[in-house]
Amino acid sequence: MEQRGIDCLLLSIGSDLPYLTGYQAMPMERVTMLVLAAEGEPTLIVPGLEAPRVDPGPFRIEPWEETDDPLMAIAAAAGRPAVAAIGGETWSAVLLGLLSRMTETTFVSASSVMTELRIRKDSGEIEALRVAASAADRVAARIPNEVRFERRSERAVARDIADLLLEEGHEKVEFTIVGSGPNGASPHHDPTDRRIKHGDAVVLDFGGKLDRYCSDTTRTFVVGDTDPVVAEIHAVVVEAQRAAFDSATTGITAESVDRAARDVITAAGYGDRFIHRLGHGIGLDTHEAPYLVSGNHQTLEPGMAFSLEPGIYIPRRFGVRVEDICFIDDDGACVLLNESPRALVSVE
Amino acid sequence: MEQRGIDCLLLSIGSDLPYLTGYQAMPMERVTMLVLAAEGEPTLIVPGLEAPRVDPGPFRIEPWEETDDPLMAIAAAAGRPAVAAIGGETWSAVLLGLLSRMTETTFVSASSVMTELRIRKDSGEIEALRVAASAADRVAARIPNEVRFERRSERAVARDIADLLLEEGHEKVEFTIVGSGPNGASPHHDPTDRRIKHGDAVVLDFGGKLDRYCSDTTRTFVVGDTDPVVAEIHAVVVEAQRAAFDSATTGITAESVDRAARDVITAAGYGDRFIHRLGHGIGLDTHEAPYLVSGNHQTLEPGMAFSLEPGIYIPRRFGVRVEDICFIDDDGACVLLNESPRALVSVE
Repeated sequence: MEQRGIDCLLLSIGSDLPYLTGYQAMPMERVTMLVLAAEGEPTLIVPGLEAPRVDPGPFRIEPWEETDDPLMAIAAAAGRPAVAAIGGETWSAVLLGLLSRMTETTFVSASSVMTELRIRKDSGEIEALRVAASAADRVAARIPNEVRFERRSERAVARDIADLLLEEGHEKVEFTIVGSGPNGASPHHDPTDRRIKHGDAVVLDFGGKLDRYCSDTTRTFVVGDTDPVVAEIHAVVVEAQRAAFDSATTGITAESVDRAARDVITAAGYGDRFIHRLGHGIGLDTHEAPYLVSGNHQTLEPGMAFSLEPGIYIPRRFGVRVEDICFIDDDGACVLLNESPRALVSVE
Repeated sequence: MEQRGIDCLLLSIGSDLPYLTGYQAMPMERVTMLVLAAEGEPTLIVPGLEAPRVDPGPFRIEPWEETDDPLMAIAAAAGRPAVAAIGGETWSAVLLGLLSRMTETTFVSASSVMTELRIRKDSGEIEALRVAASAADRVAARIPNEVRFERRSERAVARDIADLLLEEGHEKVEFTIVGSGPNGASPHHDPTDRRIKHGDAVVLDFGGKLDRYCSDTTRTFVVGDTDPVVAEIHAVVVEAQRAAFDSATTGITAESVDRAARDVITAAGYGDRFIHRLGHGIGLDTHEAPYLVSGNHQTLEPGMAFSLEPGIYIPRRFGVRVEDICFIDDDGACVLLNESPRALVSVE
């Protein structure tokens, strides 16, 4: 904070607060805020009825009652900082309230300090990501044997995958994308009542939280017989992922890893069908820095963990995506955390 | 907007955008923003890979690609508004980015216009809340017969309730509070591995979304034999809820309904153990205006829907809460949407 000229850090909902303290604020209209001033005791302003949920370990707890104004309490605890950094996911209604109560303060995004801390995972965090990835791998391995696709709805398949995520140890399901046939061409497709057909390609992208850290993996399956065009495109995607993986090492820029995958897909003639970035960092959040995207000149360093998820999307026909989590180890090598097979598997 | 002196409305994540358009933005680092300027066409700035999810009906869609700056696109679409109202749940990182790009604009919270619209439900919304409440009632009715409590963990019971919510038609589970024995004294308790014991009081507070609208109900059960103190306190809570229900009608202030319940609990000697507001509005969000809390002088009007959820919390021993959703009808009468029995029921 001192190096960044920040006098006070204000953290509310999102993962910055649990990263520093282990406590996660409920995302709701009742405001929770950690006030961490350069001078003075760290203070957690918390709704009175949630105070029993807080382990008072690292900070002074200041509960506010239902008829109090928590924004006044935050302003008082902050003192009169020249520069305050506020957590990026804090509701803008809270920031607007603070702007009107702290007129001498300049507000900046807390990501200026928090990203630098969170982007380098320590060995405990990497281990947590590995445990989460392994749980997701076990789900991927069970899918061909235990999930029926043909004539069932995407929604029903999504329910099955959510159940498997919980059975394999996740505490929370974060997302279950089931993009069958033409719906697979929409990377963030919401599962619908569409009945899955023989011959469909199906993109399954799922993840959750296990001991606070996130899993996130994607496999593409075919239902019954394999369309040769799907198989060809799937091979391109796997090759693109492999090229990205091979390029990822300490000192390489995030955008160059994206380019390594994109070059393979472009050479195969599908460059304009790879319509998103290659990947995103992962940790307490499913999506966090570093982002593997053109324009991001940040260099990879040991401890960074991220997804590699190239995809090719053919509008009105199908999509193919393969996604694995990896990290840069202390020797600068890229290490995969997901280990389930990447081959195109036929399901029933 | 014109009446409020607002030149441009900016809506991102949260329920204001789906309320107006039916489209819900994904809560993530890729920004979605509806730009609704007093002049000009409504424009949805949306991540390119999510554009296929959008029904283009009500607005012009402007996708941004992974290497674009969506904040510049938002600023350009907004023009140069003197006053812009931004959705209250928008990430503060987005607001800070807009503040630096739109230096001539004063930002206010969009709740100044949106709350007034959303707080009065039309008959279709009340019907949706009724359908959601009925689904939650069916869950409550099934619990004594189908959920085992004794010697099972709070977490396992929470899983069962989540399954029941989905079985009874919810699309999404929002929360499943299981507060057994001393844990019930924390109103927002997270389910733990605590094993539920014979004689425990257990607070079950659960809800989800069904056709976009929320359910939210609380019942307190006892496991096996009923402690007479729990029974006495439960009777006080039910009486307090009834008093609040009887007081709620058009023209009455929100705080006076809170007081009607609080007076009953105070008269019974537990005033300092009712540690939260009486209730909250409900609709597309579980918690929204009107809040039934001391200090809220807003008067109730037809179409307002809200929870009545008095509770008494005995630290280190147990908690009791009963919660139902109701609304004010066109004649000014308060009508319950939940109909499951409120009696203290023994479970196994």
